[in-house]
Parts: sequence; C-alpha cells; structure tokens
Amino acid sequence: MSNDERNRPEDAPPTTPQTQGTTAPDMQDAELDDARLEVILDAVEAGDAVALAAALEPLHAADIADLLEQISSAERRALLALHADRIDGDTLSELDEAIREVVIESLPRAVLARAMRTLDTDDVVDILEDLDEPDQAFILQALESDDRAAVESSLSYPENSAGRLMQSETVSMPQDWTVGQAIDFLRNAEWLPDQFYHVILVDERHQPQGNVTLGRILAARRDVALATLAEDVFRTIEATESEAEVAFLFNKYHLISTPVVDDAGRLVGVITIDDAMIVLDEEHEEDMMRLSGVVMEESVSDTALTTARQRLPWLVVNLFTASLSAVVITQFEATIQSLVILAALMPIVASTGGIAGTQSLAVAVRALATRSLTTANARRVVRREMGAGLLNGLGLAIVLGAGSWLVLGEPLLGVVLGLAMVCTQIIAALGGVLVPLGMNRLGMDPALASGTFVTTLTDVMGFFAFLGFATIVLL
Amino acid sequence: MSNDERNRPEDAPPTTPQTQGTTAPDMQDAELDDARLEVILDAVEAGDAVALAAALEPLHAADIADLLEQISSAERRALLALHADRIDGDTLSELDEAIREVVIESLPRAVLARAMRTLDTDDVVDILEDLDEPDQAFILQALESDDRAAVESSLSYPENSAGRLMQSETVSMPQDWTVGQAIDFLRNAEWLPDQFYHVILVDERHQPQGNVTLGRILAARRDVALATLAEDVFRTIEATESEAEVAFLFNKYHLISTPVVDDAGRLVGVITIDDAMIVLDEEHEEDMMRLSGVVMEESVSDTALTTARQRLPWLVVNLFTASLSAVVITQFEATIQSLVILAALMPIVASTGGIAGTQSLAVAVRALATRSLTTANARRVVRREMGAGLLNGLGLAIVLGAGSWLVLGEPLLGVVLGLAMVCTQIIAALGGVLVPLGMNRLGMDPALASGTFVTTLTDVMGFFAFLGFATIVLL
Repeated sequence: MSNDERNRPEDAPPTTPQTQGTTAPDMQDAELDDARLEVILDAVEAGDAVALAAALEPLHAADIADLLEQISSAERRALLALHADRIDGDTLSELDEAIREVVIESLPRAVLARAMRTLDTDDVVDILEDLDEPDQAFILQALESDDRAAVESSLSYPENSAGRLMQSETVSMPQDWTVGQAIDFLRNAEWLPDQFYHVILVDERHQPQGNVTLGRILAARRDVALATLAEDVFRTIEATESEAEVAFLFNKYHLISTPVVDDAGRLVGVITIDDAMIVLDEEHEEDMMRLSGVVMEESVSDTALTTARQRLPWLVVNLFTASLSAVVITQFEATIQSLVILAALMPIVASTGGIAGTQSLAVAVRALATRSLTTANARRVVRREMGAGLLNGLGLAIVLGAGSWLVLGEPLLGVVLGLAMVCTQIIAALGGVLVPLGMNRLGMDPALASGTFVTTLTDVMGFFAFLGFATIVLL
Repeated sequence: MSNDERNRPEDAPPTTPQTQGTTAPDMQDAELDDARLEVILDAVEAGDAVALAAALEPLHAADIADLLEQISSAERRALLALHADRIDGDTLSELDEAIREVVIESLPRAVLARAMRTLDTDDVVDILEDLDEPDQAFILQALESDDRAAVESSLSYPENSAGRLMQSETVSMPQDWTVGQAIDFLRNAEWLPDQFYHVILVDERHQPQGNVTLGRILAARRDVALATLAEDVFRTIEATESEAEVAFLFNKYHLISTPVVDDAGRLVGVITIDDAMIVLDEEHEEDMMRLSGVVMEESVSDTALTTARQRLPWLVVNLFTASLSAVVITQFEATIQSLVILAALMPIVASTGGIAGTQSLAVAVRALATRSLTTANARRVVRREMGAGLLNGLGLAIVLGAGSWLVLGEPLLGVVLGLAMVCTQIIAALGGVLVPLGMNRLGMDPALASGTFVTTLTDVMGFFAFLGFATIVLL
C-alpha cells in the first residue's frame, strides 16, 4: 500500500513508472529464483553496487524483504553496505520485525526519513511501534505534520487494536450527496489514498452511515443519490476492538474495507482486507505455534541462542509435568520388578493416548478460533469426543490386545493393554476438548493449553491405567 | 458476493432493500447471540414459522450458516421443515460441506434453483463440486445459459485450481480507452458484477495487460488514457495454478483482485481477495490439523462415529510406530530388572524430547508454508536447530541431573539422565526440521510429517540413549 504519488500536484493524473502503449509491456515482477539469488550474492561478494541494484530493481518489495531475511547476517551486512541508500519504505514494511530493526539501524538517516514519508500511516505505525524511543522520535519528526498527527493518534490506541491497524486516510462524503458531486469531489481532491474501495457516507457528526463501492458509483448516472447505492451489509469497527476480532469479522463477512470509529461513533480511519489478511495469517501462526509449545515469535533468521532461549521455558515446564509420570510409575515399582515387559509396553498406551489428545485438542482449538464451538454446541461436542474416544479405544484395544497376545503369547497381558487403551483414549479425547474449553472460559488463549498439558494428562493416565490394571489382573 | 441486482433492467441504478434517507438507518446486521439463539430454538420447538423467520431475517447469511452448523441434527431438521422455503444462495454458500449437503437435500427443488441463480458463478462452482451427479445436473439445468456455460468451463479445471476459484464475470476494456469511454461503458452496461475493484485492460487478443483501480478512474478527467492509470504491480494467474499458490500470492503481494488467464494467456476470469482469504484460512487449518494428526476435514457437526473413523487411521499408525519403542526397551530388560527406577525416569527424557521435536517441527512446517525456509537458508536453519538442541539439551541436563541427584541421592543417575537429555534434544531438534524438509523435497506436504513420526523418533532415541547410558555407566 505504498503511495508514491502521494505528493503529486493537484488534479494531475498519477503516472506509472513503466510506459505503456499498444504493445504489451511485461509488468509482472521478476521472480526471486535461485539464479537471481546467485547473481545477487555474487554482486555482494564482488562489492559491485551497480550490478546489485540492477539485480534487485525488478523485484517486488516483498521479495527483497524475503531475500534480506533468508541470507546470512554477514551477507546482509555486506548487501546493506552497498545498497542501503536504495532501501525503500515498502521493503521496510515487508520485513520481519527482528530483521527490520537491523536494516533500519544500517540506513542513513536521510534515507530512512524519505522511506517513511512514502508510506501510508498504517504502515508507518506498524514499523514505529516496534522501534526504540530515539528512532520513533526521529521518524515522527521526519513525517509531514498531517501524517505525524495521524500516526500519533493511531499510537494512542492499545497495541494490537483496530486503531493501530487502520489507516487514517479515508474517503468520506456527506450522505446526501449525488454521484455527480462525488465524482467532482474526487477529481478535484488534492490527495487521495492510493487504494480505496468504498466511499464512506457520513452524517453531519462525521458518523459513518453507509459504504458505497466505487463500481456502483462508476456505473450510476450523475443525478443518482449515493445513499441509494449503499451496500446492504455495513459494519463499523471500534478503534479499541482487538485486531484478532477485526480479522475474524473480515473473514466471516467477506468485508473489503470497513470504517473505524472512535468511542463517539465518529469516523477515524479505515481498515482494508489486505491488512486483515495479514492479521489472520499471524493469528493462525500464533495458534499453530502455541499448540506446538512455541510461545514466542520465531523467525528463520534467529540465531541458535535466541531459538534455544525462546523454546527453553516450555521445555522446563514439561520437565516438571513429565516428572508426574515418573512419580506415578514409581508407585508400581514392585509390579514392574516382577514383570519387566510392562516397562516396555507402557509407552505404547501413553503415546497413542498422546496422539488422540493432540487430535482432539487441535480440532477444539480451531473450532474455538472460528467460533464454531460455542455454548450452543459445547455439550454436544464434548459428548461427541467422549464417544469417539470410546470407539477408537475399543478399536485400538482389539488390535493391540490381539497383537500382543499373538506376539507375546500372554492373553491376560492383551486384556490389560486393551483395558488401559480404552481408558486412556477416552481421557485423551475428553482432555483435548475440556482443557481448551476451560481455558477459553477463563479468558485465556486455548491454544496455550498446548501439547504439554494434554500429553502430560495422557501420559499419566496411560501409565496409571496400564500399570494399575496389570497389578490387579496379572499379579 | 451475492448479486441480487443481477437481472436489473439496463442502465437502472441498483437499489438496496433498505430505504435510506437523511436519517440514519441502522444497517448493522443483528448478532447471533445467546438470547437470539434461544428465541430461534423456541420458535423451532413451537413450530412457529413466522416467529422463526422474524428471528432469522436480520441475521447475515454467515450467521444463519453458523447456526445451522451448531444446532443438533434434530433441531436442524425441525428448523428446515419450517424455514426451507427461505434458505437463500448466500446461506448455502456459507455452509460447511457436510451440513450443506443435508440442507440442500431438504430444500424444495424450486427454492434450490432460485437460490443458485442468485449466486456468482464462483460460488455456484464451490457448491456444485461437492454434490452428487443428479444434484449437479439439476442445478446446472436451473442456471441461465450464460452462467451454465461459465460454471461448466470452471468445472473443467482441476479441483483446487485457480480456475475453480475464479468468477467468470470480469470487467475488462481495450487498453487504449480513456476514462470517459470507461465511465460511459460502465453506465450503459447491461450487467456488472456486484463487487469489482479493477478494470482489466486487455489487448486485441483479450490478453490482460494491466489493472486500473476504480479509485483512479473516478479521480481522473475523462480524457485521461486508462493505460496511464494502471497499477505498478500487476500479476496474472494461470487457471491451472493451485489455489494454495493463489492464496500465497495474494497474501504476499497484497493483491486485491487478479485476472485469471487460460493457457493462451487470454482473460477467463478474476479472483478476488475475499476468496483468497478463505483459501488461506483453509490451508492454515489443514496445516494445523495435519501437524496434529488429523488428516481429514472435520466439522463440529460430525457424529462420534464419523469423528472416530476419521482419526483412527493415524492412531493405528502410531500403534505400530510406538511398538518400536517397546522393542528398544525390551533390549534393556536386564538393566531395568536390576534398577527399576530407570523405568520410571525414562519417560521424562522421551517426553521432553517429544516437546522439543514438536517445537522444531512446527517452526519448520510454518517456514516452509510461508517459503521463508528455502534452499538459500536450509543449511543454516538446520545448523541453527542443531545448536539450539545442544544448548537446550545442556540446560535441561543440568536441571534434570541436579534435580534427580538431590531427590534420589544418586549422582551417577543424574549424569546418565543429563547425557541422555543432550542426545535426545539434539535428535529432536534435527528431526523436527529434517523430516519436513525431506518430505517437502519429495513433493509431499511437510505437515503430514506430523507429531507421529517425530515423536516416535524422539521416543525411540530417548529410551535408547537413557537405557544405553544407564547400562554402560550404572551396571
């Protein structure tokens, strides 16, 4: 959402960098393929700034950002030494936070100031909120006063709120205007956002009353009232709403752009679907990572030490929860002593329970995220999980019981394995849905329930059921 | 993306169902909250079709679909018996496949035909591709001939391709037209898509040459050439491209709508970001589910039997892989016999390894999905994982070794636990990245590597390392 035409003279049409005639210019950006990567790294190694610029120039900012993230930190330093002058706002905007900070530190201040001035305010906010105080102050200073005010207002909303996500640049009109008035206004506008999809109709208090898509304005005659063209489905979002809620609403209701209002219902900005899509993507990443016990944001460009430090806390938690299994097993030392094969078989029950718990957990966390698991059906879903656990427990019990009887020649051992399997599968299926449901009700992120708690539960139950039944049946 | 105005008379402006004046009508849809849910279920129970319609009418189609998915199958049957006549195309379009089939079977044929005629062709295709042959034939027959041709052409592309995702309705113009010609064309168009964001510029062979956003057309004077307003970034997508690739491109390059071309490069349709967002959401769901060992699509409305059947295959696989651990452990029966505490401690090493493997796996699968793990950095990421595994292994070894020494009073046992922990953590971190990388190179979905393989690896290695070191050091 860059806006190179930001400061173009009043009423002049924007121009594209490529000249276009009746012949077909190839406007498709170049790919960042292995061949180009090699050319780029060769130019960096040779210290050839001209060749480097030529290789980078046809790339989309998102690809230049990918490149900067994927090369080694030595290569990145060398590349920036040659190319820092030409890094633009879009590229900064596309970078991962960790790498962005490194790149920003390496930019001449004038380049940084110029880069930030070309961005829409939502992108400036996105970059600014991760920076240190001095860098923030420098960039705010570098902005034009209108933009600075918009950025400061946006930063006054909580982190991860709609107010941080929105762009302050909106296109709004009085709700009693006609198509002709709208077109005249737009043709004479000193400045317009580079991308906008609706004209927002507002009342005299600047409260949004409707959205008109541009296609309908273009297709209507000049005397048609804008209000008659407004869309059936219209929502506003409060600036204090969480960005996760915003992403959910855009995805559910197929919104394209939605006005953001302050606590008095006045228009303060607009959120577009491309920003909502990025949030949705991040929410998904967070869910998947948390479920897998990765709590902090990771990047492929992190060092081994950073990675280790980020993952260690959850591993230490697991060390203690896993010790619970050890405590349970020690209660059955006498049983194991008299039948050592039990020690070899017990992980089968526990591990299959762990998989079942993980399956149930993933489905429940996803259903909570998409809000398809609600008070309307929670009870039914829990019953369903219990039923599924029972059925799979029985199925696995037959396979495992019969298999172990055949292999080990001990029918009673097969019965013990089967009984333990049924119990563990039911507990696993129930735990997988009840733990995230409970966390959700407590206002916690259900994905934080993660593998650790549910697999501890299934491990402990698996060992206890198996060794317990073994003590009763076999000794 | 319904299109109620589809057949409106030439050149008449579209009208919205609500009348809008200078006063502010509340256009926001009603919420599907617990209070409304109760009203709806009461009306269903009382068999009161009028009260039911009144309670459902203010809801967005997405909320009616959610409701149908979340209530029990008995409630759903009762609701449909009262309300089937009023189910519209949008609601069908929003439903999960499994429930959609149930609902479609319950609709009077005339209602179904009417509902399908109001949808854009991409939504018709989305519904049609999951239906049985007779229903498909009936719906195709019910469509107008233009739409039927478009739907049949779309169905001729492979499943999950851009051709299936696109809508055939496009707004394209010769690339030498001016803004004035564009506006006149749009004002006189017999029919336009309900939502479109760009005018696609085409050459005389109907090959797309550029995208012009509607905002720029509205802001320009009538004599400006459209070609000078075209966007800098322009991509076309081949109809045979996978929808996953489409979602990736939209997310990466912040596309809003993109022309789809056939193998001769001719314009055959357009994909908009809201459709790409749905695909992105589904791709994420698939990754998360596969990682957690849920291979088939699940829905909260599935029965216990369906759920059990969907999850069983992976559990059976795990039963066999878990038996590998049992085989390893039986090799050390003599060791366990002489020191039963080992049986209690071995799950700690294995389980902490399992968590580390899951962490590493989730990060690698995500990085592969976002293509931030590439040939450019694979080697470095593998080294990073190995380093992180070593560091965390050492950290955990110290905690566990010292802890067990304190609790059990056996320094040598602490040493064995520590050594086993270091080995298992390194293997876990490496397995978590090498397994998905290998699967990706073989052209398989890396998420299918899933918990099962990596936890089997960490279990087997954990037991082997721990019991092996114990045999050497303690006996």
